[in-house]
Amino acid sequence: MSDAPPHFADRLIQRVRTLGHPLCLGLDPHLPAIPALFRRGSMLPGDPQTAEAAHSFLSAVLARYGDRIAVVKPQSAFFEQLGWRGLQVLERIVAQAHAQGTQVLLDAKRGDIDSTAAAYAEYLNPDGALRVDALTVNPYLGRDTLAPYFKRAESDGRGVFVLVKTSNRGSGDYQDRLIDGQPLFEVVAASLNETAQSLQGPQTGWSALGVVVGATYPEQSERVRALLPNALFLVPAYGAQGGGAKDAVRAFVRTTSGRREGGIVSSSRGLLFPDGSQTDDVRTWERAIDAARDRAIEELGSATSGT
Amino acid sequence: MSDAPPHFADRLIQRVRTLGHPLCLGLDPHLPAIPALFRRGSMLPGDPQTAEAAHSFLSAVLARYGDRIAVVKPQSAFFEQLGWRGLQVLERIVAQAHAQGTQVLLDAKRGDIDSTAAAYAEYLNPDGALRVDALTVNPYLGRDTLAPYFKRAESDGRGVFVLVKTSNRGSGDYQDRLIDGQPLFEVVAASLNETAQSLQGPQTGWSALGVVVGATYPEQSERVRALLPNALFLVPAYGAQGGGAKDAVRAFVRTTSGRREGGIVSSSRGLLFPDGSQTDDVRTWERAIDAARDRAIEELGSATSGT
Repeated sequence: MSDAPPHFADRLIQRVRTLGHPLCLGLDPHLPAIPALFRRGSMLPGDPQTAEAAHSFLSAVLARYGDRIAVVKPQSAFFEQLGWRGLQVLERIVAQAHAQGTQVLLDAKRGDIDSTAAAYAEYLNPDGALRVDALTVNPYLGRDTLAPYFKRAESDGRGVFVLVKTSNRGSGDYQDRLIDGQPLFEVVAASLNETAQSLQGPQTGWSALGVVVGATYPEQSERVRALLPNALFLVPAYGAQGGGAKDAVRAFVRTTSGRREGGIVSSSRGLLFPDGSQTDDVRTWERAIDAARDRAIEELGSATSGT
Repeated sequence: MSDAPPHFADRLIQRVRTLGHPLCLGLDPHLPAIPALFRRGSMLPGDPQTAEAAHSFLSAVLARYGDRIAVVKPQSAFFEQLGWRGLQVLERIVAQAHAQGTQVLLDAKRGDIDSTAAAYAEYLNPDGALRVDALTVNPYLGRDTLAPYFKRAESDGRGVFVLVKTSNRGSGDYQDRLIDGQPLFEVVAASLNETAQSLQGPQTGWSALGVVVGATYPEQSERVRALLPNALFLVPAYGAQGGGAKDAVRAFVRTTSGRREGGIVSSSRGLLFPDGSQTDDVRTWERAIDAARDRAIEELGSATSGT
């Protein structure tokens, strides 16, 4: 017992409490949006200089956050599109975040069977090549395929966020289809409750099993909360797809301290590419990044405050 | 029109016809199973020498196949677990397969929304960093999230294999749940038919939209075939999970030539780690690999033959 690593949700939520806000910085390096200040070479995905540009941009943004956020969420696709050099950038960004005392949730939405699922769960191995703190996964293949991630959550203090109701317009195609009167996303949520309970953090009561629920669907989000009372919510795309701060924290719960907690709210485009950041002047760029950061922290701090 | 790249399914099926079998070589470098002949260093995922070992092993296997197969299927998870060096190995293996005239289907089961889906679709960009011929994808997030892959299929002669009914025991958890009396996997299959028709190859009639259906579920496989008459089937885990050659090609259709066609059948463990291949003698290892290869080609050739 004394060797057990700190529980993922305990670490995350205690940090959120200290900081006073649940903001998660999404790291999605859209190549065409990277400001002039950081651009190098052709900026095409296959060009080695593009990976260097992505790294210098993300590293500079991350440095502006210092120890002011609990967690960052790199989006794997944007690194993968740069080939192996992109993965090298990801590894460097993960190391920088850890050095800043920030947890890393890799948004990779993986899902596969048997030994392949175990290989994906290596992302959560503290002795592995990448060593992230939490991973997003896709439930379509069935509960047995999620087991390797939950095993890492239990043995190594890691977190697992299962896709439940995604923020896109077409998420209803399958997720909203009714099974015995209940939409598929609720069936998925209900089937995870036993595991969520078993992965409860000893200090905060929150689970190392989290769920992904888009801020664009606040009512569905409340229904998922009813089915999974102690699951952390990853609410993506705050600020980008129309969901406001109040909607984003709709499924958070009121604690005895009066604050609302129970998840993290991620923003990427709004924080990486805010108004005024398309410049080749360093000071102007820094001011734009800092202003977007402070505004998001203020909005989410206020939306989760007791007042 | 004259600039249109060759259609994925036309290229694949014409090659399968020439070769007389639908075998796909699965490249899943399970680290503990790599024979002594190729092992280097600690063989732990984080050790740089492990990536070199995985490369020398896979490259040697691939060389034994020469131009005797239409397609290879690297499993992304096993490369990713080695970090950026693993992606470098994957890029080298893709280049070797292409040099041997073999197509590459990357088994990555990706799925995400909006611009992230577009970033994953970069795997299918002929000018991208990795340049594979086809990709497996997960439908849970909805049809709008699959559009970027289909766009690449149309514009660049690429293939997309959508997960429908997976081979694992727990695949029924969600895939078999009934929606208006029809299991989810059939709902997914039915919803893809219009796109499958629109991506029909001009020469063979087969579609660049394929589906993944486990050989362990031959009856379900026939139902998916009824819903998607011109979709290519990727039948994984042939030989490993108990499905035989006849079951594997159950959803293939009889052509006017009398042969059964309409997909590819993948085997990994049985071809990479056959009996007798755990040796440090090169000639013994080559004989074991060749024997497994010849047996699989013979079995699948026979199962799809007209006689």
